[in-house]
Amino acid sequence: MHLKNEMFHEVPKTEEQKSHQKVTVVGIGAVGMAAAFSVLAQNVSSDIALVDVFENKLKGEMMDLQHGSRFLKNAKITADTDLSVSAGSRLIIVTAGARQKEGESRLDLVQRNVEIYKGLIPKLVEYSPETTLLIVSNPVDIMTYVAWKLSGLPKNRVIGSGTNLDSSRFSFLLAQRLNVAPTSMHGWIIGEHGDSSVPVWSGVNIAGIRLREINPHAGHEEKDAENWNDCHKEVVDAAYEIIKLKGYTSWAIGLSCADIASSIFENTNAVKAVSTFVQGIHGIDKEVFLSLPCVLNANGVVSVVKQKLSEDEMAKLHASAKLMDEVQKGLQF
Amino acid sequence: MHLKNEMFHEVPKTEEQKSHQKVTVVGIGAVGMAAAFSVLAQNVSSDIALVDVFENKLKGEMMDLQHGSRFLKNAKITADTDLSVSAGSRLIIVTAGARQKEGESRLDLVQRNVEIYKGLIPKLVEYSPETTLLIVSNPVDIMTYVAWKLSGLPKNRVIGSGTNLDSSRFSFLLAQRLNVAPTSMHGWIIGEHGDSSVPVWSGVNIAGIRLREINPHAGHEEKDAENWNDCHKEVVDAAYEIIKLKGYTSWAIGLSCADIASSIFENTNAVKAVSTFVQGIHGIDKEVFLSLPCVLNANGVVSVVKQKLSEDEMAKLHASAKLMDEVQKGLQF
Amino acid sequence: MHLKNEMFHEVPKTEEQKSHQKVTVVGIGAVGMAAAFSVLAQNVSSDIALVDVFENKLKGEMMDLQHGSRFLKNAKITADTDLSVSAGSRLIIVTAGARQKEGESRLDLVQRNVEIYKGLIPKLVEYSPETTLLIVSNPVDIMTYVAWKLSGLPKNRVIGSGTNLDSSRFSFLLAQRLNVAPTSMHGWIIGEHGDSSVPVWSGVNIAGIRLREINPHAGHEEKDAENWNDCHKEVVDAAYEIIKLKGYTSWAIGLSCADIASSIFENTNAVKAVSTFVQGIHGIDKEVFLSLPCVLNANGVVSVVKQKLSEDEMAKLHASAKLMDEVQKGLQF
Amino acid sequence: MHLKNEMFHEVPKTEEQKSHQKVTVVGIGAVGMAAAFSVLAQNVSSDIALVDVFENKLKGEMMDLQHGSRFLKNAKITADTDLSVSAGSRLIIVTAGARQKEGESRLDLVQRNVEIYKGLIPKLVEYSPETTLLIVSNPVDIMTYVAWKLSGLPKNRVIGSGTNLDSSRFSFLLAQRLNVAPTSMHGWIIGEHGDSSVPVWSGVNIAGIRLREINPHAGHEEKDAENWNDCHKEVVDAAYEIIKLKGYTSWAIGLSCADIASSIFENTNAVKAVSTFVQGIHGIDKEVFLSLPCVLNANGVVSVVKQKLSEDEMAKLHASAKLMDEVQKGLQF
Repeated sequence: MHLKNEMFHEVPKTEEQKSHQKVTVVGIGAVGMAAAFSVLAQNVSSDIALVDVFENKLKGEMMDLQHGSRFLKNAKITADTDLSVSAGSRLIIVTAGARQKEGESRLDLVQRNVEIYKGLIPKLVEYSPETTLLIVSNPVDIMTYVAWKLSGLPKNRVIGSGTNLDSSRFSFLLAQRLNVAPTSMHGWIIGEHGDSSVPVWSGVNIAGIRLREINPHAGHEEKDAENWNDCHKEVVDAAYEIIKLKGYTSWAIGLSCADIASSIFENTNAVKAVSTFVQGIHGIDKEVFLSLPCVLNANGVVSVVKQKLSEDEMAKLHASAKLMDEVQKGLQF
Repeated sequence: MHLKNEMFHEVPKTEEQKSHQKVTVVGIGAVGMAAAFSVLAQNVSSDIALVDVFENKLKGEMMDLQHGSRFLKNAKITADTDLSVSAGSRLIIVTAGARQKEGESRLDLVQRNVEIYKGLIPKLVEYSPETTLLIVSNPVDIMTYVAWKLSGLPKNRVIGSGTNLDSSRFSFLLAQRLNVAPTSMHGWIIGEHGDSSVPVWSGVNIAGIRLREINPHAGHEEKDAENWNDCHKEVVDAAYEIIKLKGYTSWAIGLSCADIASSIFENTNAVKAVSTFVQGIHGIDKEVFLSLPCVLNANGVVSVVKQKLSEDEMAKLHASAKLMDEVQKGLQF
Repeated sequence: MHLKNEMFHEVPKTEEQKSHQKVTVVGIGAVGMAAAFSVLAQNVSSDIALVDVFENKLKGEMMDLQHGSRFLKNAKITADTDLSVSAGSRLIIVTAGARQKEGESRLDLVQRNVEIYKGLIPKLVEYSPETTLLIVSNPVDIMTYVAWKLSGLPKNRVIGSGTNLDSSRFSFLLAQRLNVAPTSMHGWIIGEHGDSSVPVWSGVNIAGIRLREINPHAGHEEKDAENWNDCHKEVVDAAYEIIKLKGYTSWAIGLSCADIASSIFENTNAVKAVSTFVQGIHGIDKEVFLSLPCVLNANGVVSVVKQKLSEDEMAKLHASAKLMDEVQKGLQF
Repeated sequence: MHLKNEMFHEVPKTEEQKSHQKVTVVGIGAVGMAAAFSVLAQNVSSDIALVDVFENKLKGEMMDLQHGSRFLKNAKITADTDLSVSAGSRLIIVTAGARQKEGESRLDLVQRNVEIYKGLIPKLVEYSPETTLLIVSNPVDIMTYVAWKLSGLPKNRVIGSGTNLDSSRFSFLLAQRLNVAPTSMHGWIIGEHGDSSVPVWSGVNIAGIRLREINPHAGHEEKDAENWNDCHKEVVDAAYEIIKLKGYTSWAIGLSCADIASSIFENTNAVKAVSTFVQGIHGIDKEVFLSLPCVLNANGVVSVVKQKLSEDEMAKLHASAKLMDEVQKGLQF
């Protein structure tokens, strides 16, 4: 181009420097787009690729984001139905899969999604051998296991979005009751993302003071006159409720993904509840993924915090592990 | 609540300090939600109210945002079908109105939207007498006029999102051709948002050097061998194209709203192309709103930059003004 | 000015909208400037006034910040030796006072600083009747009391920076030992900022699991084989050590001020350890200010979190309260 | 450590993922610390190493930053007198060198600084072969040349902070006169950083409209009744003035470094005025570095914008090039 040549003096360079913060989002439904937009708007990465099978929607979403790139620190946005667009990613967020429908359990979705993953995961890892995988497709704990199996990646580099969102919802609901900021309200939900998730009531605290130091039955299903357990029930119902009200969930799960991505890119050793390989922890002997508080950095999950769990909490965790294991045994790889 | 009383010592306070950064978004379709989410995720405000007539969707969107509040600097999110939820806003972003359909011109929407505004604008101003209005509903220039008429607010406090988005799209497309960052590519589109928008080619520059100093015909519809005007054509077609591809536009317009809001809240005197009252500028004698580069601060639009326009650019601006005026004369208030 | 008139069309406005985020920093030594710069660079406010008695340094600092305003979201920076420059502030950060010298105890500084405050506080409040005061001058707990007495402001609007910094140091040191992010390491130091500060070991936790659940003696001065208490000792020595090494402390206290300011401006109800009026809490009967975990929002301190303290922790807190009270009785107002 | 082992389950990992955003700051005087703090506070990088010869001050600054890491997104801060602490940096900001004294010209400092660079640059590049160098030591244009010679790096990866700061000062001063945001005021200063810098008046514009379209003599030393050139004079005097007033410059140059660093890390192709190799541009035949608007991304300077310069501007640029060349010929490598 004439004008371009006249306007710029090119500086010869000896080699091309790769981007080290490229994020690919696979699946551009409401969840995938909320994740992509959160990553961009919160400045977690300024290099995003989108992948999906719907060519038109893909091009539309790409254009719509590109038109805002001036408001997004000049972020680079690419998109293609071909997985090669993901090449060189440091993080791949996989949201592909059938969307959970009103009333549908997360476990019902599984084999359908395994088939999709077979066509995706091996190629994604081939294009980005150094990537970490962040799995969001439901049922997330099983799909994280599936992604791990199909990817051949070490365990630290396959992460499920897990109960990071459940913990955020839980902390918000508790915080609202006590009129403090959600970030000052520390409540952890672990185990299976969804119906069988386990709130660790013993640790729920503000400034290190536990709710159970004041109300020893806080969170107990029967003995608690203040019904704190309603907060956990609301968490379990949250996805169903929002799907009923607006048709799908998007913003909070998108932000949760950006939050996890940020811990990885900033290499901070932040502790988040994400789905990780739990065999050998809390006496679990199955080869399954469940959420526990994990230390996250550029290497993915580098260690797992071993909370002191009550017998009841432990029992629920083991029940989930057993269920996961049974479902996994039935899967066709 | 027993636990709360035991856990907190209340400090008596003499008066309640109001939030001074409250933003209300009226209309929670794709555009309104993208605006609300952009405002939150980019930390422009941490106090947002949502208003719409669809009670279920409204509750769903509110819950979905609230569940992410831990990732949004503890933002406060409220929502109601009753306009009183907007009380005390410093900025109200109005996106309510029928969505532009594939192939529909912006002008076709107008009287439908006037009726909606009659039920909204006077009450919104009553609840928030110090608010500035940011109008996004299409056709935006006319709806900004309508909002001004219905609100009784001074001219500086009624702003249309106008061609801030068109200018962002334009700069992105030019920047992509020249391989520079969109924020380093300075291209302004003024006039009517949409089909009749006016690219001010004479001012298009990088680092103060104008494209026309190198290619004197850059942007000319016939004489330009490099077809720079294709960039403007793409801008004009952008909304239609994206609606065709993904069904609606959302991200870029949402970010554009957050960008304007940020100039107002940070009180910076930033210059943005927004729709403002143009009677008396560039020889326009009609009482109409069109986009020109405006200086924005806490008072809204405090002054308008008088670009040097070519005869052709001036003619297009006057034609738009005349068209606006004619449409406005036909409106039923 | 000719050019300006030609270039801009002024929009008449009916009234001037005040900035609602103005911060004044009184005292522009290393601490004051680190606070001002942190507030600007972390985008807590874009409207800052500097006050000091040294006219030259004041002008130099103002110019140096202004020259960077393009990199600071166009922040507005003003400065004057006259307190009127602070008019209309929402937050005033007072760092004025003689700097703590190597080996000097914080209590030695006090009467000198009272004299300075007499000339400052009443006038500052006169110029900004809606302000909250954030006191940083040492000894901070006593100077916060002095500022409260001199200001006539309600208790919620006079805050000492207190042990927010000590808690940050503590969490960093604990986190470093355990290889987690400081924000995931929850350690609270309360009481008097400085030599007599009280680490609340019982609450120290990661993800809700307390160090004392694993090592019941963690933090105990004699019984703890792992010497966790060294972390608290390092906190107590930190200011002395840094002053010895670089001559003064600046960055961490500046960031701590910006952190507190952010909780106030974003109105989030975040819990921070700041110096507040503690009479009536934990059985303290003196009219003194000490740090406890406080809920902060636009109203300042709205409530205080009542941690469960051990006998030993309680005794230290009461000893500090008694000491404060004795010093305060000797002050000349 | 017993507690650590009990609390964490380590996840085995196959290889260590490097940080890709490590910044080293060499020289921790006021400029170096302002650069380091700006990079951290504006979240440009969360991995910083400090290098200096003063062991005590180095340790003091490191501790002071570390104690604030909880307010800095858990940033990692290291420091050492040994250059090995810089290993693996993606960007090294070199501020080492004698500080410019009141009244001293930048050129007087040069040979002293060459000696310092001989001991630094080759080793820094050995420890971080993929680094880009950002040179800040004065006289910056010559020191950038010196660093290039000593480093053996390709031209795109050796950058001088140059007139990015002068341009920021210039835009601020022009903006203040016209009451617009500095980021909306586009003024470029090129050439030599300091006394002989060249303001490109022809390009000075707001929203694409040039000041010279309204006042054709704007910036002319004699013919301009409005004395716009005073803004350039103030820029030239700024460093001297601030050094006289506060003893040194720090904030604005620190922010300018963070701004350049951000363009590199975010890989945006943003255009900034930095010192680059200019032989072959604007007819310059000397092997010298001077500031011109450069396109910056992860590869450093990828191209240079060829502004249309007036005869006078061209003559000044050539005079600076000749002067640089003469000084350089006298240097002992």
